[in-house]
Amino acid sequence: MKFSPLIEELIESLKVLPGVGPKSAQRIAFQLLERQQKGARRLSKAIDSALLGVQHCQQCRNFAEHDVCDICNSEMRQASGQLCIVASPMDVLAIEETAHYKGRYFVLMGLLSPIDGIGPDELGLNLLEKRMISDDINELILATSPSVEGEATAYYISEMAAQFDLTITRLAQGLPSGGELAAIDGKTLGHAFSGRKSMS
Amino acid sequence: MKFSPLIEELIESLKVLPGVGPKSAQRIAFQLLERQQKGARRLSKAIDSALLGVQHCQQCRNFAEHDVCDICNSEMRQASGQLCIVASPMDVLAIEETAHYKGRYFVLMGLLSPIDGIGPDELGLNLLEKRMISDDINELILATSPSVEGEATAYYISEMAAQFDLTITRLAQGLPSGGELAAIDGKTLGHAFSGRKSMS
Ligand SMILES: [Zn+2]
Ligand SMILES: [Zn+2]
Repeated sequence: MKFSPLIEELIESLKVLPGVGPKSAQRIAFQLLERQQKGARRLSKAIDSALLGVQHCQQCRNFAEHDVCDICNSEMRQASGQLCIVASPMDVLAIEETAHYKGRYFVLMGLLSPIDGIGPDELGLNLLEKRMISDDINELILATSPSVEGEATAYYISEMAAQFDLTITRLAQGLPSGGELAAIDGKTLGHAFSGRKSMS
Repeated sequence: MKFSPLIEELIESLKVLPGVGPKSAQRIAFQLLERQQKGARRLSKAIDSALLGVQHCQQCRNFAEHDVCDICNSEMRQASGQLCIVASPMDVLAIEETAHYKGRYFVLMGLLSPIDGIGPDELGLNLLEKRMISDDINELILATSPSVEGEATAYYISEMAAQFDLTITRLAQGLPSGGELAAIDGKTLGHAFSGRKSMS
């Protein structure tokens, strides 16, 4: 059975959500129209506002509503001299939740993956290099995941950073191999932080 | 850690979706902003269009984009003389997928539930009564679920329909097809027993 075009389009567009297949897209569409019209309106507004208003921090590339995000602006974090390199904003969140780390971040928004056309430019590594020149950084913490891409990216950045006078470390102890960083529990992540090892 | 207000609002509003808790709302929000901006834009547009354009069929109350839906408009279905009463548009979908039924529907958009303020008016039973008077209906199929509310609603409608010259039927209860007997709850098994049919 085909629904009306507007409902079909709603069902189709709901499939963009991670983990939502054809059946649950149908269920969600009907529920929104039947019982959640107010919530649906709020959702569509929130999507539009976020797409319009959320940009990337000019220093760390994390999501921000201003040119520079709160973490980059914090003097306390600047004073730490630490810069933690992560693949995505969700990794920042996961690390912040451990409360183990009080430095700043650099968010790659991906990992090196030549097959997908993701190279150093896409990860903003020129911006990262500029920060290593101009900022007062004494430790670079490579917190990419222990996957093939994560390791390759960490290696690439460590090579790039070798010319600068700073300590390069990599999260090591406790990370389960192949796991996504953001999915790891806080305790494991905390251990990984305190057990980080020098790469230089 | 708090995100920026726009991201927080996006996360909050995603929780309206069935089965989406705080953690997956976060994940979805970040994925939409990071990798699915086009899909997110399409989704917000589809929600707006559906909320604006989808109305209820004036005859069966199902979702429709015109005054009367395709099913109600079908002469073949009108000629069947059958009217199937269901609780929601998803039930229409489920029945249509069986291809067992070729009549029309009446969609209650709920079930009687005085505690939730859902009475005969909310289910459009006055409209249903009008149809029983004016339409050429010879069988009323009560296809509400075998729950307390579903049974109460079916009983209420059957009482209302008793004054008209039509057959009133209720979907059979029994063993779900393919289910293992030992895994079936006692109530269902009891219904299957009392509804058993002669094979000879
Ligand atoms: Zn920043
Ligand atoms: Zn209709």
